[in-house]
Parts: sequence; C-alpha cells; structure tokens
Amino acid sequence: MAAVAEPQTKKAKTEYNHTREAFLDVYATLRQELLDDKMLEGQPQEAKDWLREMLDYNVPGGKLNRGMAVYDVLASIKGAENLGKEDIFKANALGWCIEWLQAFFLVADDIMDGSITRRGQPCWYKQPKVGMVACNDYILLECCIYRILKFHFGGSAAYGQLLELFLETTYQTSHGQLLDLTTAPPGHIDLSRYSMDAYLRIVTYKTAFYTFYLPVAAGLVLAGEARPAAFELAKSICVEMGQYFQIQDDYLDCYGDPAVIGKIGTDVEDAKCCWLVCTALKEASEEQKDVIKANYGQKDPTAVAKVKDVYRQLGLAAKFEAYEAQSHAQLSATIEEQSLLPKQVFTSLLAKIYKRQK
Amino acid sequence: MAAVAEPQTKKAKTEYNHTREAFLDVYATLRQELLDDKMLEGQPQEAKDWLREMLDYNVPGGKLNRGMAVYDVLASIKGAENLGKEDIFKANALGWCIEWLQAFFLVADDIMDGSITRRGQPCWYKQPKVGMVACNDYILLECCIYRILKFHFGGSAAYGQLLELFLETTYQTSHGQLLDLTTAPPGHIDLSRYSMDAYLRIVTYKTAFYTFYLPVAAGLVLAGEARPAAFELAKSICVEMGQYFQIQDDYLDCYGDPAVIGKIGTDVEDAKCCWLVCTALKEASEEQKDVIKANYGQKDPTAVAKVKDVYRQLGLAAKFEAYEAQSHAQLSATIEEQSLLPKQVFTSLLAKIYKRQK
Ligand SMILES: [Mg+2]
Ligand SMILES: [Mg+2]
Ligand SMILES: [Mg+2]
Ligand SMILES: [Mg+2]
Ligand SMILES: [Mg+2]
Ligand SMILES: [Mg+2]
Repeated sequence: MAAVAEPQTKKAKTEYNHTREAFLDVYATLRQELLDDKMLEGQPQEAKDWLREMLDYNVPGGKLNRGMAVYDVLASIKGAENLGKEDIFKANALGWCIEWLQAFFLVADDIMDGSITRRGQPCWYKQPKVGMVACNDYILLECCIYRILKFHFGGSAAYGQLLELFLETTYQTSHGQLLDLTTAPPGHIDLSRYSMDAYLRIVTYKTAFYTFYLPVAAGLVLAGEARPAAFELAKSICVEMGQYFQIQDDYLDCYGDPAVIGKIGTDVEDAKCCWLVCTALKEASEEQKDVIKANYGQKDPTAVAKVKDVYRQLGLAAKFEAYEAQSHAQLSATIEEQSLLPKQVFTSLLAKIYKRQK
Repeated sequence: MAAVAEPQTKKAKTEYNHTREAFLDVYATLRQELLDDKMLEGQPQEAKDWLREMLDYNVPGGKLNRGMAVYDVLASIKGAENLGKEDIFKANALGWCIEWLQAFFLVADDIMDGSITRRGQPCWYKQPKVGMVACNDYILLECCIYRILKFHFGGSAAYGQLLELFLETTYQTSHGQLLDLTTAPPGHIDLSRYSMDAYLRIVTYKTAFYTFYLPVAAGLVLAGEARPAAFELAKSICVEMGQYFQIQDDYLDCYGDPAVIGKIGTDVEDAKCCWLVCTALKEASEEQKDVIKANYGQKDPTAVAKVKDVYRQLGLAAKFEAYEAQSHAQLSATIEEQSLLPKQVFTSLLAKIYKRQK
C-alpha cells in the first residue's frame, strides 16, 4: 500500500514525508538554479534581484495543492515505498512547474481583471515599482517552466512529452481566459451569454486542465505511461473533477462560511459567470430573471440580497447538493469501472475535494 | 549557385519565387490551421473570430525580414535549386513562427511602454474593445508558435531542437525586456545607468537573439545541422550583427531621413538608452554631460536640440561611421575565416543591413 491514501497511519519505506515544507525545499533549489542559469551569465545583479523577488512574491504563496499532487499521483502508481530520492525530486520539480504556470496566469489575470489583492497581499502589478512591468514578469514566469524542464528532464525520454504537456495546457488555459473575457468582459455585463454550456466550457479550459489534468498527466509521464488511452481516460475524469471543483467554488462563494473559506464571496457583485447564476437563469421564471438582470453585478448589498433571494426561491443550495451527489457518484463509477490506471490516482484527488468546506 | 544571393539574375530550378506574397500565402494556411485546431473543437464562433482578428491585426503587418530570412538561410546551405515544395513550406512556416514571436513581444511591449501606434495603426491594446484583454492575446500569440511547430514538425527529428530554440529565444528576449525595464523604467530617467555595457547587453538579449540568431538557427536546424560548434559560431556572428543593426537603428533615429525611414525619431524625447547617448555620456566633458542630463527625455524641441548639439560637438555621426566600418570589417573577417558554414548564410544577411538607410 502506498503512503498516500493513509498518510497518517502508514509510513513509506523511504524517509520522505510529503509535507508542504519538503515541497518548499524543492522550490528553494529550483529558484537557485534559475538564478545561476548559465544562459543569464553576466546579467547585472539588479536584474537577478528583480527575478528573485518576483519569483518569491508570486510562485510559492498558494495552497500548493496542484503542485503537491504530482508526487501523490506518482506514488499512487509506483507505490511510495518504491520511490527514490531522484523520483521524488523530479515529481516535486514538475509540481513546481505547475505552480509556476499558475503564478504566470494569476499575474496576468489580475492585470486583466484589475484586481487589488491576491493571496492576502497586493497583486504583483499593484506594487508601485512594478506596474506594467508585470506584463514581462509573467512571460518570465512562464519561461522558467521550460528552464526547469530542461535542467531536470532535458535529454530524457519524458522530455518531449513534458514539453508538449505544458505547452498544450498553456494554450488551453489561455483559451479559457479568452472564452471568459469574451463571455464576461470586465466592466460589461451581458447575462444572455451566461449559459450553462458557456460556463462549463470556460471552467474546463480556464481551470480544469491545469488544475486537475496537468498534475495527473505529469505524474503519469513520470511513471513512464505512454498509452494514449491512459491519458484520454485521465483527461475525461479530470475535466469532470475540475468542473465539480469550480462549481463547489461558486457554491462556497455564496453559501460557504466566510470564516472557513477566508474571504467574503463577491461573485454576485463582480457579475461572475458562475454556476449559481447560470443555473438560476436556466430555471427562473421571467419575473425572477428580471430581478437577476436588474440586480446582478451591483455593489449595493440590497441588490445582492435580491439576487440571493431568487437563488433561495429556486432552491439552488439543494440543487448544488444534488449535483454534488450525482457528480460524485458518476466520477466514482467511472473510476471504478476503468482498469487502465490505479484507482487511487483519482480517488485520492477526489477525496481531497469532495464535500470540501473551503 | 543559390537564388538568394542574386535573386534578380538567376532562377532556381524550383518554381518558387521567394516574394512577400509567397510568404504571406503561408500565413494564410497557418492561420486556417490554427482556427481549425482540433484542440479547440466546439469553441464558440465568437472566440474563433476574436482569434482570427487578433492574428490578422498583429502578425502579418511587419517588414517580414526576420521571417523571410529562414528560407534564405536554408537556400544558402542546401542551394535553392535543391529545395522541394515541402522544404520551402517548412522554412516559411518557421519564418512565420518568428513573426509570431515578434508579434507576441510587440503587443506586450506596447502595453508596457504605453505606446500609441505600431506599424501605422493603433497598438492592439489601444483598440477600445481590447484593452487589457491584450494581456491574454499575447499569450495566445506565443502559444500559436508551438501549435505550428507541432502541426508541421511534431514527431520529426528536428522537433525537439526547434522547441528548445524557440523557448530559449523567448527567455532571452524577455530577459532583454527585463534589463531594459530595469535600466530605463518608463517614466523614470536615470542616466547613470546608461553605460555602453548595459546598452549592448540589452540589445543582445532584447533584439539580437530573436532578430538574427533565431532565423539563422532555424534555417540550420532545417538543414539538418547538429554540430554545437556551428550553432555557437552562428550565435556569435548573429549577436554582433544584431548589435550593429540596433546601433544603426539608433543612428538613423537621429541622423536618418524621416522621409526614408518613415517616421520622425524621438529617442531623445523618449529618453531611450540608445547608442548615441551611451557614446555621448562616455566621451562628454562634465559640462556636456550636464547639458545632456538637463535636457534628455524632454518633449521640448529646444531641449532636444541642445542634446543633439552635444552629439554634434562630439562628432557622433563620424563615430558611428567609424564603428560601422570597423564592425563590418570584423564581421566580414569572421565570416571569411570560419569554415563551418557556407559564408552566404551570413553575407546575405549582412548585405541586407550594411549601410541601410531605413
Ligand atoms: Mg481574476
Ligand atoms: Mg479573469
Ligand atoms: Mg470563486
Ligand atoms: Mg516599445
Ligand atoms: Mg519597451
Ligand atoms: Mg529606434
């Protein structure tokens, strides 16, 4: 049995304990390698200082779930007890590539959305000395992924697969952003575009691929997987899981406990194209639709309350619970029925998000 | 003899004529492939329309010298008469990848510099419907490079080399931007940073790699070149040529004929870290330095005239001519002395830029 499913009770034969701290140690190594990159030899100290500060500000401060999942996937396939130091480092290096990818997209997203804070600090572009220089910084963040891949996988059998995986995921995610920006352009509300179809497609491209499929696929590559069918299967399960994850996120924005999720949801105020409003628009009477149209996307608490009252009338919380149960059952069945990959690859991921409160 | 050196007088055995029009035909093909990309299947028409318009606006409108050079390099090595339809298409597809890379960096650069126009039209981000969505559009532009590479080189021996080449050049160029932005931050002038060293490093990273080395290296890869020494040689010649090219650009900004170069230079007004001011600051007396410091970076024509008068006192035009002669002689000698690559690979490039008036 791998250590991953029951990390508290069983101990892997390797000394390794897959903690946040252990994962962060790998960050420190990768950062140093990037700063010592031979390609940048002779670069002035000022530029190196900027790079280091920019990386520290944007890369390691998230929940790290995505990055840490690569090791979990690899351990689910190979057994944690069979992983050597090198395997573990490589899994975590790939995990950090995912965190780098996320940092790259978040820095860009905050500029486009005109956001103020991110992860409890001002958005990078909001730092007085940064501003629009952030537009180049996120290019650098992206480039770092390929330096890390070259440093640690260059010349290996997996290298080509990994390059394509990250490049493809980047393209998918930026298309997700394009869909989002054309469906819900900042500062311009058009609820007629908020269909469930549009919503699910945005979520799939903008979130699911890089959040769920990418760590799983990276783990599969590391495990030596080469069968296209295995990746196809992983993709369909991960997309479903990613949709479920985002729908939860949208549900928690309205119905979660702010003390638990760490923020007060503002999706209604921000006119987000979220699961709740898409479901509401699908189910509402003409009258209820009018209430939503008149009040969605306004900062005024009375307007927000009116929208949420329509949600209540439509029983959206119960609808979410029904969706959650059904989606979980379906995912579980798909995972159970397939025989291409160890079930634990997916069940350990699913266990982390099912009925999450934050 | 290849058709490239004397395109007017000799005719290659292939029907192909390497004109701007022929090159643009390849753009049309590549664009269609991107719009039909299976990975984007089911994408709403709106998103595809956006992509097409964004590509047309930003990719094909430049001088196309960089992109068209890949074919020239390949023809110099293999002989134009030995190139089949497929070789020609591939060379031009790679050429377009370079144009895509340039478009990606220009869209980003214009946002960072707060520029108004580019290639005779408003900058993309200045289009009312675009704005900060341009931050995602240049990610898309970059991603297109790797789709094109996958479509036309995926699985080939050259694929890995090409991926690394484009990824590396992207990293170098974004480091060039970082150097530029930390040396000459928009809206903040500090002439003490304008050293010749800093200048040459910015030029090398920001311009030379993608403008000269990239087309040559792409051509070499297509020609089946694999010797690291050949790429190293090409890099050192191309970096030198890139510096020369940018120094010309800076010279023409002040001393060129606006009717010929198509714009009125504003490097002094824009406080550019250019060859002229770096040379001036190196050679000037304390008094002259004070004049530069007091007047550089101001829109006022009298201030500009004072700076240019210091340039005149220092004989910068003659200094440029001396530099040009010396650089040309040195480049020619290096090209002559090496025996790794056909001289024409470099001489045809050099001939295009030596003593150019625009
Ligand atoms: Mg956002
Ligand atoms: Mg956004
Ligand atoms: Mg949310
Ligand atoms: Mg600019
Ligand atoms: Mg600039
Ligand atoms: Mg210029």
